[in-house]
Amino acid sequence: MGPGPISAYPSVLRAMSAPLVGQYDPYMTAVMNETQELYRSVWATRNEATLLIDGTSRAGIEAAIVSLVRPGDRVLVPIFGRFGHLLAEIAERAHAAVHTIETDWGQVFPVSAIEEAILRVKPALLAIVQGDTSTTMNQPLDEIGALCAKYGVLFYTDATASLGGNAFEADAWGVDAATAGLQKCLGGPSGSSPITLSDRAVKLVRSRSRIEAGIREPGDKNSAHFVRSNYFDLGMILEYWGPRRLNHHTEATSMLYAARECARVIALEGRDAVIERHRIAGAAMLAGVRGLGLRVFGDMAHKMSNVVAVEIPDGVPGDAARAAMLNDFGIEIGTSFGPLHGRVWRIGTMGFNARLDTVLTTLVALESVLRRFGASVPVGGGADAAADEFRRA
Amino acid sequence: MGPGPISAYPSVLRAMSAPLVGQYDPYMTAVMNETQELYRSVWATRNEATLLIDGTSRAGIEAAIVSLVRPGDRVLVPIFGRFGHLLAEIAERAHAAVHTIETDWGQVFPVSAIEEAILRVKPALLAIVQGDTSTTMNQPLDEIGALCAKYGVLFYTDATASLGGNAFEADAWGVDAATAGLQKCLGGPSGSSPITLSDRAVKLVRSRSRIEAGIREPGDKNSAHFVRSNYFDLGMILEYWGPRRLNHHTEATSMLYAARECARVIALEGRDAVIERHRIAGAAMLAGVRGLGLRVFGDMAHKMSNVVAVEIPDGVPGDAARAAMLNDFGIEIGTSFGPLHGRVWRIGTMGFNARLDTVLTTLVALESVLRRFGASVPVGGGADAAADEFRRA
Repeated sequence: MGPGPISAYPSVLRAMSAPLVGQYDPYMTAVMNETQELYRSVWATRNEATLLIDGTSRAGIEAAIVSLVRPGDRVLVPIFGRFGHLLAEIAERAHAAVHTIETDWGQVFPVSAIEEAILRVKPALLAIVQGDTSTTMNQPLDEIGALCAKYGVLFYTDATASLGGNAFEADAWGVDAATAGLQKCLGGPSGSSPITLSDRAVKLVRSRSRIEAGIREPGDKNSAHFVRSNYFDLGMILEYWGPRRLNHHTEATSMLYAARECARVIALEGRDAVIERHRIAGAAMLAGVRGLGLRVFGDMAHKMSNVVAVEIPDGVPGDAARAAMLNDFGIEIGTSFGPLHGRVWRIGTMGFNARLDTVLTTLVALESVLRRFGASVPVGGGADAAADEFRRA
Repeated sequence: MGPGPISAYPSVLRAMSAPLVGQYDPYMTAVMNETQELYRSVWATRNEATLLIDGTSRAGIEAAIVSLVRPGDRVLVPIFGRFGHLLAEIAERAHAAVHTIETDWGQVFPVSAIEEAILRVKPALLAIVQGDTSTTMNQPLDEIGALCAKYGVLFYTDATASLGGNAFEADAWGVDAATAGLQKCLGGPSGSSPITLSDRAVKLVRSRSRIEAGIREPGDKNSAHFVRSNYFDLGMILEYWGPRRLNHHTEATSMLYAARECARVIALEGRDAVIERHRIAGAAMLAGVRGLGLRVFGDMAHKMSNVVAVEIPDGVPGDAARAAMLNDFGIEIGTSFGPLHGRVWRIGTMGFNARLDTVLTTLVALESVLRRFGASVPVGGGADAAADEFRRA
């Protein structure tokens, strides 16, 4: 019940035990195609370029940034938590001219602040996190695509922590590139990163095309502005996932099965129903921790559904209480980064863990642990408030 | 039965269904430590810096090269097949001054040719493939470490296709850095890349250390020569696998389980026994295809144990025959790259597939398919010769 990675759906765990097949086996390429189609639904997009990067969520981030940013390009990164710093860091390593704006932890940016920064910085790319688990905030993105289109800015967002548990509309919001991971609301293991690219992003990627030595053919023209990573060169990766099936990496078959099953779970339950399940579980957890008399951190109007930051009560040793949750109850809750380190725990309700029983169990265990460490907590206050919330839904 | 990816060991498939745990759960970090120790045996090394890169085998290659090569560094790449070109490509993208020497496909380099090139190029890094599946050749490495030590050159080798099925002695051979993948002789899925680094390599990596923005602490000094990739920055990855457990990526738990189980299979059977099993299966497959009257490609004195390149007989349509093997017998054999494309099939015997029954089944199926396409083949000539080889072992 931490901020991720989380317990996977049982069917996702089982999916990874399926036998492997060859890289160009018709079954393999059919699974790749099917997975692309499933993720188009998850992202709410018609983008042909919807696929997986073989690595963790930050592999997807790096693939997007190094493929979309040419050295010297201006990149604007609005930072509202740790993972905004990560986007800036990756862009800086890629020789971008990085400009950041920051807001206090626990807040998001009003669209006017982003517009003001775009006008000032004139970036080639806006890179912004949707949901930052470090603060639990969910940045509204619905007006940003139009803004970017107006000023000719490419719009990339990192939806690792939010996708599948909060609204996401790639096409309707005008997103040019988005990446995620399986280990949050998608309910799978870390190690595969879904990505989707608009036609505009694909055009840029293709303009930087370079087919690697060893498989280059006479007709292949290589750009002078090629991507400096081979592994994250989206131009090559698109040729591997596309009809040419040009050999690049060897697709991580078991992780492909996992990613497919994560998206199948969503398709079966219904994408909107899964997002609603996260909303309810998140609201119940929020009501529950408040029912225990705990204060929560950040602007509740912009909290992600799937995680809440709970202030550690005075006198309760944060790490010892977390250890008691894990060792005595088998329940993980999260610590935190940066300015919140030692101040809050982060409790997640995502993917398979966005359920009535997991929420109630966590709350009764937390009540017990808090009392053990001397905190005064209302008897049953957490589980009762959470159960009420579930009943209301 | 292609050149990889291959069928995984059943226990490896099962291992991936194990429940996930939190990133810093004591069980998780214990599994990470155990996996490091298991891979020290696989690599035959005492290197503390023995761990996994979260990505396919080429992720491991890129992590090694971008972390060991500073822009402008001279890198020498002896190329004897497609994957030598890949090492050169990745080094070139990393702004290295790449120098290559080439030998005919089907051959390896005598150590004198490598010494001559080192003297001429004076590289900072020698990057060479051990086993290149594109040609099936296995480059002898046992004298190269001493050579590199003599001339102050860092020695990196890509053992993706060879590790676990052919001799590899990281310490005895003086290897500074080596990377692999699970999807060949280690008998697992693609998606995790074992890597080992000597103290000399670690020293270089640490000299380029940069702790990313967002988790940097006052005492952290950042080098001006930092690695331009965040995901492949071995300095950060070492801090994640080391006692500091500094947050970097979220370790791909299911792939970690898979990687651990691959190494456990080897530990249980015995490393030398597994290599010997590959030797026998490879010798049997070689005898078998010759028993069918087929010619093989390359210098048999330097063939990897785990793959053989078989010349497609005149008049037999290579792709149609491969399709018949797959569709009618459920057996994949491989096509080939570059100068060998359309000339040879590549047949593998690796990991779980290095067995008597898989070898014999492949050979009787191939006999049937060859005959169907009009080739004249000795009745039972393949399986008989292979069975003889197994009996002799």
